[in-house]
Amino acid sequence: MSQYAKPLANLIRELSKLPGIGGKTAQRLAFHIMSMSEKDAGALSEAIVKAKKELHYCSICGNLTDRDPCSICEDQKRDRSRICVVEQVRDLVAMERMKEYKGMYHVLNGAISPMDGIGPEDINLKQLILRLQDPEVEEVILATNSTIEGEATAMYIARLIKPAGIRVSRIAHGIPVGGDLEYADEVTLSKAMEGRVEL
Amino acid sequence: MSQYAKPLANLIRELSKLPGIGGKTAQRLAFHIMSMSEKDAGALSEAIVKAKKELHYCSICGNLTDRDPCSICEDQKRDRSRICVVEQVRDLVAMERMKEYKGMYHVLNGAISPMDGIGPEDINLKQLILRLQDPEVEEVILATNSTIEGEATAMYIARLIKPAGIRVSRIAHGIPVGGDLEYADEVTLSKAMEGRVEL
Repeated sequence: MSQYAKPLANLIRELSKLPGIGGKTAQRLAFHIMSMSEKDAGALSEAIVKAKKELHYCSICGNLTDRDPCSICEDQKRDRSRICVVEQVRDLVAMERMKEYKGMYHVLNGAISPMDGIGPEDINLKQLILRLQDPEVEEVILATNSTIEGEATAMYIARLIKPAGIRVSRIAHGIPVGGDLEYADEVTLSKAMEGRVEL
Repeated sequence: MSQYAKPLANLIRELSKLPGIGGKTAQRLAFHIMSMSEKDAGALSEAIVKAKKELHYCSICGNLTDRDPCSICEDQKRDRSRICVVEQVRDLVAMERMKEYKGMYHVLNGAISPMDGIGPEDINLKQLILRLQDPEVEEVILATNSTIEGEATAMYIARLIKPAGIRVSRIAHGIPVGGDLEYADEVTLSKAMEGRVEL
């Protein structure tokens, strides 16, 4: 890539470090940035620095926020008796998009994964235990992903919390709404049968 | 997306303005940037501003460069008798990757396209005509793309230059090396026949 002028080669290299951005895409993005107005390029550059500088994890729930506590933890209208535990901030956002759940959240910012050397002490778990000392908390809803790591994390947390007498629940697994039975895999189908509800 | 803290929502919005980056990808990139070290994020941000600030078009050939004239125009070892005309800087880079051509370049930074309202005066053409006044120049090689716009641009330039007595050539069209005749389209095949060389 030495044919490019140094600042351009540098930009391409930095862009290609992003996930899913290969050399060709990085080139295309770089040329697009070169064709942007100085103002727009500046806005992109500033957004990166600002997000990195101004955002940090909420000291209560682990959400990414520009103030502490975050807007959800601060919201007095929310139901403080329930805490929904998710792996990532994007999972919290997905839950919020549902617009139905009005309880609190706890973002682990990871999942227990012995294969990757990530143990319970490497995720935002200690803080969750501290939050449970608040007598207001009645239920912990485990909404970690339905992966091996997510399931293991949910099981671990359930075992940890149950003795304290707090209700622990796991979100339901089953056929997605609009999903075709024919195309569901066996494990999902078995979970759907297991979790059947009486009508 | 109002669920995200403002700096994060802002970063996602700026990223999604890039070509080929939709909402989901922008989210993924933003979360990746959040997980980068402050140093790495700073390097990316700076690369954007620096490329935008330090790069400009070479006043001779139209290449993107951080100095003027660009390293190719400045290189005294290159053959000044030939000028290869390309549409974009990336085309110049592709030619350079070949490592065979040692002449000069001229980057049009566009192609004539009446459909998009781009005429001869909108591309870097006037400068090319000025360069041809140098008696050293013997040949202009038209290496614009093999698209309607690229062909039209090549034809236009050829007609413009020919009367001045300078040799004008067009790069060959034909079967790509390693390509299968069976899969070549008719136009390519016809071009390949037309451009056949005696052995």
